[in-house]
Amino acid sequence: MNLLLLTADQFLNDDTAQVSGRQARHIVEIHRAELGQRLRVGRVNGCHGQGIVTNISADCVTLSHISLDQPPPTALPLTLLLAMPRPKMLRRLLQTVATMGVKKLVLHNAARVEKSFWQTPFLQPASVHEQFVLGLEQARDTVMPELVVEKRFRPFVEDRLPDFLEKDTRALVAHPYDAIPCPVGLPGNQPVALAIGPEGGYVPFEIDLLKAQGFSAVSLGERILRVETAVPVALARLFN
Amino acid sequence: MNLLLLTADQFLNDDTAQVSGRQARHIVEIHRAELGQRLRVGRVNGCHGQGIVTNISADCVTLSHISLDQPPPTALPLTLLLAMPRPKMLRRLLQTVATMGVKKLVLHNAARVEKSFWQTPFLQPASVHEQFVLGLEQARDTVMPELVVEKRFRPFVEDRLPDFLEKDTRALVAHPYDAIPCPVGLPGNQPVALAIGPEGGYVPFEIDLLKAQGFSAVSLGERILRVETAVPVALARLFN
Repeated sequence: MNLLLLTADQFLNDDTAQVSGRQARHIVEIHRAELGQRLRVGRVNGCHGQGIVTNISADCVTLSHISLDQPPPTALPLTLLLAMPRPKMLRRLLQTVATMGVKKLVLHNAARVEKSFWQTPFLQPASVHEQFVLGLEQARDTVMPELVVEKRFRPFVEDRLPDFLEKDTRALVAHPYDAIPCPVGLPGNQPVALAIGPEGGYVPFEIDLLKAQGFSAVSLGERILRVETAVPVALARLFN
Repeated sequence: MNLLLLTADQFLNDDTAQVSGRQARHIVEIHRAELGQRLRVGRVNGCHGQGIVTNISADCVTLSHISLDQPPPTALPLTLLLAMPRPKMLRRLLQTVATMGVKKLVLHNAARVEKSFWQTPFLQPASVHEQFVLGLEQARDTVMPELVVEKRFRPFVEDRLPDFLEKDTRALVAHPYDAIPCPVGLPGNQPVALAIGPEGGYVPFEIDLLKAQGFSAVSLGERILRVETAVPVALARLFN
């Protein structure tokens, strides 16, 4: 935790906040914070800065003199379309995505997504929020990503995706067949959409639907990567 | 598992092999292989190709007519120096490192490495081998990485590291202070050493030791990444 990320309801007033649960334990057990210590804090969708620990009780830490004056790091101009991964991977991916600065994430169904994946409690809003907070705290970011869940692939791609993407979006799908190498170092103001399929990849019908919406197939190299590796590798190539 | 990676002791003769345990279960339960089915197989440190399933019993699958004629994918010209991560992360990192084509990995101590990390059973050779096999099978690679464990940082960096690195190695340490941006797209024949510190980073004394050996500090951007994200991000930048 490189930043203590606070939601509006954790503020008692403009410059005082109280945290409990995981965040309080982290401050006490990992940072071993003492009274008077300064910590880096941020406000969800706001700025970050510092606060001073002024009270520590059983499961509650109070921060006062909070002053937030630094903007969050630059976000990626990216809409990430991810086929629903297996639940254990989902949690880590939500964190990774938030850490790397993705602000629009679409988890969608695909032919090779196991139906049972959709039953996971890790998709519940409180769980998603927790993973996003952990990812943002890692990166000293404050801007909460937006998550969209699309359980039917075809209506999503055909009907909603065109409106969802900004005009002039560079649309790419990670798919190693008939593909060009994934571009490197795109200009920072170029909106990009990147689709990454499930284990085993998209089926040809899904690739055709994406191509009909202007997506180009790109390859991340001759090695087949797990999705949790493919995401950081692709983002590091696209936006370096 | 995009390749079934076989060790010498799994071969009954030149073109027949028997697998049990995890690999047999994977073939039966995930691939749902039937008699006569072709599977992609490889031999550790050798080529890959195909084999045919000719027997399936309780916990054992036999592959015959194995023909291995394709070379493994290109390895990275990299020596990766990683401060010992926490055990859960270690397992995944060993897989990721193998998948991405790293062939030399040095796990080393550092001031901010918790002593308890070294007690993990995941460092035992059989466990390391298993994670490497999983990583190689993912990437359709066959060449086993070499793992070196260095429990004392200073003697390692001062005495052994110089001999360990090839001549003209480009030596980099991921460290965001006084750093240049991490280079992008190095030439494929340039040997590289990359050091990545523990959570919280290397301490100044450690950075000084590395710099004295010719290491330059490089930054991966303004976001602080967990080591399991920093590794794929750094490798994707260096070798795209």
